[in-house]
Amino acid sequence: MTYDSIIIGASAAGISAAIYLKRRGINFLIIAKDIGGEMALSGIIENYPGFPYTTGIELTKKFKEHLEKYNIEVLEETVNKIEKDNEIFKVYSNKNLYISKTLIIATGSQPKRLNIPGEIEYNHKGVSYCSTCDMPLFSGKTVAIIGGGNSALEAALMGSDICKSVYLINKNPYFKGDKILIEQVQKKENIKIIYNALTKEIYGNNFVKGLKYLDLNDNNIKSLEINGVFIHIGMKPNTEFVPDEWNIKNSYGEIVVNKLCETNIPGLFAAGDVTDIPYKQIGIAVGQGIIAALSVVNYINRNL
Amino acid sequence: MTYDSIIIGASAAGISAAIYLKRRGINFLIIAKDIGGEMALSGIIENYPGFPYTTGIELTKKFKEHLEKYNIEVLEETVNKIEKDNEIFKVYSNKNLYISKTLIIATGSQPKRLNIPGEIEYNHKGVSYCSTCDMPLFSGKTVAIIGGGNSALEAALMGSDICKSVYLINKNPYFKGDKILIEQVQKKENIKIIYNALTKEIYGNNFVKGLKYLDLNDNNIKSLEINGVFIHIGMKPNTEFVPDEWNIKNSYGEIVVNKLCETNIPGLFAAGDVTDIPYKQIGIAVGQGIIAALSVVNYINRNL
Repeated sequence: MTYDSIIIGASAAGISAAIYLKRRGINFLIIAKDIGGEMALSGIIENYPGFPYTTGIELTKKFKEHLEKYNIEVLEETVNKIEKDNEIFKVYSNKNLYISKTLIIATGSQPKRLNIPGEIEYNHKGVSYCSTCDMPLFSGKTVAIIGGGNSALEAALMGSDICKSVYLINKNPYFKGDKILIEQVQKKENIKIIYNALTKEIYGNNFVKGLKYLDLNDNNIKSLEINGVFIHIGMKPNTEFVPDEWNIKNSYGEIVVNKLCETNIPGLFAAGDVTDIPYKQIGIAVGQGIIAALSVVNYINRNL
Repeated sequence: MTYDSIIIGASAAGISAAIYLKRRGINFLIIAKDIGGEMALSGIIENYPGFPYTTGIELTKKFKEHLEKYNIEVLEETVNKIEKDNEIFKVYSNKNLYISKTLIIATGSQPKRLNIPGEIEYNHKGVSYCSTCDMPLFSGKTVAIIGGGNSALEAALMGSDICKSVYLINKNPYFKGDKILIEQVQKKENIKIIYNALTKEIYGNNFVKGLKYLDLNDNNIKSLEINGVFIHIGMKPNTEFVPDEWNIKNSYGEIVVNKLCETNIPGLFAAGDVTDIPYKQIGIAVGQGIIAALSVVNYINRNL
């Protein structure tokens, strides 16, 4: 069976695309390794318009209800490979091969790793990539935030409210985030900023007890006693399964799209955090998911 | 006082932009002739992700709550003119002159008029441009839908469920909408499609009683007895106040943007239905509003 479209990914962008394809009566599949993706891990959300205050879990529940309303079932499989054979896309999951006339890639992105000793060992044992999810677990304790952008600054502010004290470890001598956040962070008495510091190791027993960093000012290795480490050093798009020879990825691995969410390959669309739109936000992913779906409808009407 | 940014318009796109500018600590104004715009007139809404079922009024209320949470006040004034003076934008409303370093135009679009006798006279007295808002008022009655695109087809289907009978009046010999909608409409026994028909007059007493159309097949004027007329012949962007010599509008009057919601004029951004994105949807307007706001933040950080 050949589908009109296959959506890969079921977070904000993929779900939004699915709602629109279903309303337009398109014969499609939505395949994802889980429902909600990074959205589900988002903790408190106050910037998805229409929801003044919600959480990643609550909002994912609302999106799931929306899928259920339209009887859309997400196939929970992992896509390992995609191929193009003339006008047809082949999607290989861990279970099956699916064939489609069009594709929407909406696989999102995931946090970058430091790749240092202890990082994997203590994951979920004091190491976290989602402050808004896990910071409340460190109430009254001491944590380190690693990073120099908005995400690290926002995590530090959150930690300042919840924890006893916060170390903000920045490998550069300056922050890359918004002025207002930097100013807010600098005002907090329980945030200690450490510039020019390369985190080298996370250590502990059953649980994180500390970290070691290289102080670039004096080239010495130094230790901090902490209970938790929040790593906010950027995101990595989930595009390993997209062939490099298709030439649709930029140097970060993001899929390059135009404003209609079209790629350079006819019939292939992308939406959400996986694309080269520099801002990774749920509301943007929703908008792009809808655009991608309506571009698919247009493509089918015009070409197939 | 010079603002960092002024948002013109307070429907889905403008409100979303405002939420993000406020969170980023930008010194901005939001000016609009009303809050909610076309969204507030939208009747039932089932395709804004996260809200499986809502109405234009309810969703507008939620967006207003979101503004209130951030203490954002919308200046309810009408913008008549904008000018650019070196690096500064001048915004003339019916009350004041405001000065800003950047602008986000999010003024949306409005329904096109037929410009025929009776259309204005019977507006809200049987004539409507919003089926989802007003069709329920015509339960058990006979209505005419004017148009040939998705919006007219969707209105006809809605009318088929609610009304006794529906005339679908199309000036062309074919429909421009989606196949699936056309097929659904053709299956409905209580929808009568009239092709090649130019609507010429709406008449009545205190309320609509009928319409006259020119049948292009035989060149005769014919009458239909109806209780309501729904006009769905397209949308017109609200861009009269944008100078033509800026060369940022396309032939429809829409503002041309790239995927970052930038126009060809530095510091000038646009978002939502007013742009040349061909799909006019609340979720898309939200996404573009957020992109425009973050592009403004970037612009300010880089240039000002």
